[in-house]
Amino acid sequence: MAIIEIRIELKKGVADPEGSNTKKTLESLGFEGVGAVKCVKVFEVELDMGVDEAVKAGEEMCRVLLANPVIQSYTVTAR
Amino acid sequence: MAIIEIRIELKKGVADPEGSNTKKTLESLGFEGVGAVKCVKVFEVELDMGVDEAVKAGEEMCRVLLANPVIQSYTVTAR
Repeated sequence: MAIIEIRIELKKGVADPEGSNTKKTLESLGFEGVGAVKCVKVFEVELDMGVDEAVKAGEEMCRVLLANPVIQSYTVTAR
Repeated sequence: MAIIEIRIELKKGVADPEGSNTKKTLESLGFEGVGAVKCVKVFEVELDMGVDEAVKAGEEMCRVLLANPVIQSYTVTAR
């Protein structure tokens, strides 16, 4: 049994409206010194296989379903 | 300048429909051995302050804005 973490983030240069709105709202609530805010989507997936095989399966999951390669990049790591 | 990672996940026992639908879809696409799939929301925030202060600010951001304490728990770590 392996648990993998699939981390999907927007590629550089792609607008992140959720991040920029979160930054604005934090500032309007009085938080100071807030720079860039970036939103990342994470899936934790349990897989009934070895770690190396699980990481490969996770990358295949990103290619097939979870990530949009036009605007998103992904990393898969074992936990 | 510190970069913190704010990780917001559903508390145990709270339904995760996005996770369970992702699991179903992965299975329908032919992925085998898929156990629980959990969705986690991550914010990466740059803060113009020291690391300890930044982590404290991140926890305050969760209390004030980012997390719903009824169904979500959060962890804040420095990157």
